[in-house]
Amino acid sequence: MINSDILYNLILANKERCKEGKVADYIPGLKNANKENFGICIMDNNNKISYAGDYEKKFTIQSISKPLILMLAILDNEEDYIFSKIGMEPTGDPFNSIKKLETSFSKPFNPMINAGAIAVSSMIKGDSSEEKFNRVLDFIKKISENPNLDYDRDIYHGEKITGNRNRSMAYFMKNDGIIEGDVEEALDIYFKQCSILITAFDLAKIGLFLANNGVTSYGERVVSIHTAKLVKSLMVTCGMYDGSGEFAVKVGIPAKSGVGGGILSLVPGKMGIGVYGPALDLKGNSIGGYALLEDISNLLSLSIF
Amino acid sequence: MINSDILYNLILANKERCKEGKVADYIPGLKNANKENFGICIMDNNNKISYAGDYEKKFTIQSISKPLILMLAILDNEEDYIFSKIGMEPTGDPFNSIKKLETSFSKPFNPMINAGAIAVSSMIKGDSSEEKFNRVLDFIKKISENPNLDYDRDIYHGEKITGNRNRSMAYFMKNDGIIEGDVEEALDIYFKQCSILITAFDLAKIGLFLANNGVTSYGERVVSIHTAKLVKSLMVTCGMYDGSGEFAVKVGIPAKSGVGGGILSLVPGKMGIGVYGPALDLKGNSIGGYALLEDISNLLSLSIF
Amino acid sequence: MINSDILYNLILANKERCKEGKVADYIPGLKNANKENFGICIMDNNNKISYAGDYEKKFTIQSISKPLILMLAILDNEEDYIFSKIGMEPTGDPFNSIKKLETSFSKPFNPMINAGAIAVSSMIKGDSSEEKFNRVLDFIKKISENPNLDYDRDIYHGEKITGNRNRSMAYFMKNDGIIEGDVEEALDIYFKQCSILITAFDLAKIGLFLANNGVTSYGERVVSIHTAKLVKSLMVTCGMYDGSGEFAVKVGIPAKSGVGGGILSLVPGKMGIGVYGPALDLKGNSIGGYALLEDISNLLSLSIF
Amino acid sequence: MINSDILYNLILANKERCKEGKVADYIPGLKNANKENFGICIMDNNNKISYAGDYEKKFTIQSISKPLILMLAILDNEEDYIFSKIGMEPTGDPFNSIKKLETSFSKPFNPMINAGAIAVSSMIKGDSSEEKFNRVLDFIKKISENPNLDYDRDIYHGEKITGNRNRSMAYFMKNDGIIEGDVEEALDIYFKQCSILITAFDLAKIGLFLANNGVTSYGERVVSIHTAKLVKSLMVTCGMYDGSGEFAVKVGIPAKSGVGGGILSLVPGKMGIGVYGPALDLKGNSIGGYALLEDISNLLSLSIF
Repeated sequence: MINSDILYNLILANKERCKEGKVADYIPGLKNANKENFGICIMDNNNKISYAGDYEKKFTIQSISKPLILMLAILDNEEDYIFSKIGMEPTGDPFNSIKKLETSFSKPFNPMINAGAIAVSSMIKGDSSEEKFNRVLDFIKKISENPNLDYDRDIYHGEKITGNRNRSMAYFMKNDGIIEGDVEEALDIYFKQCSILITAFDLAKIGLFLANNGVTSYGERVVSIHTAKLVKSLMVTCGMYDGSGEFAVKVGIPAKSGVGGGILSLVPGKMGIGVYGPALDLKGNSIGGYALLEDISNLLSLSIF
Repeated sequence: MINSDILYNLILANKERCKEGKVADYIPGLKNANKENFGICIMDNNNKISYAGDYEKKFTIQSISKPLILMLAILDNEEDYIFSKIGMEPTGDPFNSIKKLETSFSKPFNPMINAGAIAVSSMIKGDSSEEKFNRVLDFIKKISENPNLDYDRDIYHGEKITGNRNRSMAYFMKNDGIIEGDVEEALDIYFKQCSILITAFDLAKIGLFLANNGVTSYGERVVSIHTAKLVKSLMVTCGMYDGSGEFAVKVGIPAKSGVGGGILSLVPGKMGIGVYGPALDLKGNSIGGYALLEDISNLLSLSIF
Repeated sequence: MINSDILYNLILANKERCKEGKVADYIPGLKNANKENFGICIMDNNNKISYAGDYEKKFTIQSISKPLILMLAILDNEEDYIFSKIGMEPTGDPFNSIKKLETSFSKPFNPMINAGAIAVSSMIKGDSSEEKFNRVLDFIKKISENPNLDYDRDIYHGEKITGNRNRSMAYFMKNDGIIEGDVEEALDIYFKQCSILITAFDLAKIGLFLANNGVTSYGERVVSIHTAKLVKSLMVTCGMYDGSGEFAVKVGIPAKSGVGGGILSLVPGKMGIGVYGPALDLKGNSIGGYALLEDISNLLSLSIF
Repeated sequence: MINSDILYNLILANKERCKEGKVADYIPGLKNANKENFGICIMDNNNKISYAGDYEKKFTIQSISKPLILMLAILDNEEDYIFSKIGMEPTGDPFNSIKKLETSFSKPFNPMINAGAIAVSSMIKGDSSEEKFNRVLDFIKKISENPNLDYDRDIYHGEKITGNRNRSMAYFMKNDGIIEGDVEEALDIYFKQCSILITAFDLAKIGLFLANNGVTSYGERVVSIHTAKLVKSLMVTCGMYDGSGEFAVKVGIPAKSGVGGGILSLVPGKMGIGVYGPALDLKGNSIGGYALLEDISNLLSLSIF
């Protein structure tokens, strides 16, 4: 296990690169993020934990929620039903692209792009919109082993007001029968789940849960091995937006990034890794987080390939 | 290590499914393939080998040559140069699609689609077209440890005559500066390399070479660990055409298919697997080969995720 | 001027072809249309009028409203403002296509496709949604010289309920700043305007209004010559969906079709022509109406080219 | 008929705008054009002729050859055969775009874009490549009534060497059966025809020929009325590249531009207009020529709509 001092040095070594990135600025709540924030946390199966920098700083989970709600959706629905509505293929297009809904399948290419994730949100069970979202929040509390998680109301409202591109994709999918329920409800759950506040520490915990194929640190199996592997394989092929192929080459471990600046990552069977750095590259991935993961993967030979 | 009897039973169990597929029919040499042919070979690091069915039947390597010539191109060129001309991202489009050359980058998305592979072929060094192709052939002889490999003249001529879609992509890339040398020469190398005759046995050998990160069974390092891992990661994200994402979910190991019916596959650090079955699914992957790999992966828990 | 007997014979001659078409079936109100209905009305500048068949049968105006509200929008806004938000170019894509909003301009290609027409609807002035639509209805009453026009409530509700593809495009345009006001209000006006009930007789009147460059039969100038010519040129390049080019070749006069089965057509300076036949070809144009216009254009050498 | 003095003043009035444009620079022969060159010639049915500026300056015909060879192809083939291979619809894409060949029809959208025009070139009859091109040249000599026309060898060679985008489209169409004969021969004819040297005077003559529906000034009918009207309608919907819709609105007469700086234009039944100005706008149309035609159309109320 890498120790915290080394992590601290890697943080220092990559700090400058963060300045090249840009924080997400489509809503005020994200725009105010501090490009200097930078943190990492790693946990392994022997209860070892290392960390450095702003690993306890809260930020919104954003797209990192996508693999998580997919697990809940698989608990709630037949897997075949889900993948009759959503594909499993990387797209080669940006996360908010709509054109493939028209030109290729009618179904979104995978659950890691916005269209696919909104379709997944529409499949969460519950008697009301509130109950559905609460089930999402409870699920993430359980796998992060953090009962205090909550969502940021300001960011949620910001997402909702500016979310017309997502709304456009949702109505397109409603038209094609991909979304069966109420469109605005699915969007509401989606916007709320994106606004959940999380830390690099929480992400490391979730990463370890996935590394252990769906078992929490206190031994509760929450999802099946099959589901955990399914999610991890989609993280490899589609997790880093339209930069997933290059990330697989350069880092070589399952990961999912969000425009809030977090990256959830893990080494199968071994460890969970959470990083945070809100300065993003052109594809929407944390520029510092990416660099950190690349260094650590090279240092510890973590690539799964 | 799985034994040959189990492989034989898996062959029997999946034989029926081959009938649902279609052999490639764009040239006579491929059209005459026998849908009933079906074979597999597995080799591991302890010199164990298992096989069943038509594992010694020769067929054309087709797209399986793509990851192989990429390794030679990396020996011949700076890696940065290659990836300044070709991307590392899955496309979401069929292997012979041209539209992304126009609408997204000018560069082909990855070296596993036709456009990218033709660009790679244009980067092989040599004083003449003959020498260039001979270097390709020699390289594949070396990593398959089979000095008797040759290409099928009939199929090569067929590819050349019917290859106007590939020719179209090549001239498009010439126009955009992706291909710097002679277009027809690059195409000629590409058509010849696709016509190399190979067996499932050979593919298992090449798979083992990749599993061992670029070292042959007699201990010669041919490519760097970095190059081997790069190729394997691209096989996972882009190796099974626009069905790579689903293959990662269902089988979970690096693989590259060809329309000749072969699949090169491997488990990192452990074994190489070659399969053959010319009946293809709609995406161009061997339907029987895919099913065999899925069964074996589940049986032996081979998924890398 | 062609007489009614000839028109009657042309109706008979083309009646069979209507059977090859299909009525629009996305909402019940359209689905119930009678494929046998077929009518035409022609009016010229000398107060001559000819007609045959179901020229007084009411049907919904649908896309024929697009050139009409464009004239009202030009009265309400600076022309430059409108065309800073909407292009003037034919698209080559179906009327309900969304992909060009993403891949080319952010602005819709022209005001004759759904996206462009919805953007036009969002530019109609008024203190309330009701007032805006009433101004649309009043404008069409004026240029059709029919004070009794109204819209079909059932069809309006059907359009609104099933209109998620249009809703998707509207939110996409809202996101890109093409639509500045309220999206649902713009859609509501659009769905209502599409549901206005009209006859071939009314369309002939409107055609004559355009033929006379914006002057009614009782001599009132409603729009400028420039506006009338602008609308007529867009009818030629974009009026018959993605079949406009062929229609220009075969018929050669400005026309705008709707999936309700109507075609508004005219010969500049000479006559207005309205046709009705709800059986549609694959592009959404009245199959009988198209044939009638082709025959009449050939018979009277009406092509403007 | 407008007199030469007015034309001269319009030339002066629009001379400045030419400076905003850019001459085509993909081959040296075009790059050397003088942005200051600017000329116009108008001929009518009463043997009146007006001109101003560089109306006798030679330049390459480029895309203006497209409507001309279409007429020859219609003489050489069944019209239905031609339009089974090539559409009649505007595309909304640039003239050298390939993506619609893949995503929509397999056939090129119309004969005015490069792909369509190359397909037309492949349909010209002749026993040899030379004879085919000579027939093209003779046809243009006849309708321009200029027996001295020839092509520019330097520009032809430049087009041929740099023409890989066109070559790419041609092989794509060969693959799909749109081009039936030899690809390089079709391209050779295409590159030669684009290199024919012409003047604004010649274009006015050709324009008058089209205005008179296919009859030369000495009374010879060369093509049918139907063919002439077909070509003129395609000029309106597709003649000014992806700016055809706006040109129809602003100028309103059939026209075809070329990147050599010429525009062939005409008023049906009345006059032919040729303009020359090698400074191009972003879509490839002569910026000065466009402005001149707009002014003249407004001055004389020439719009056909």
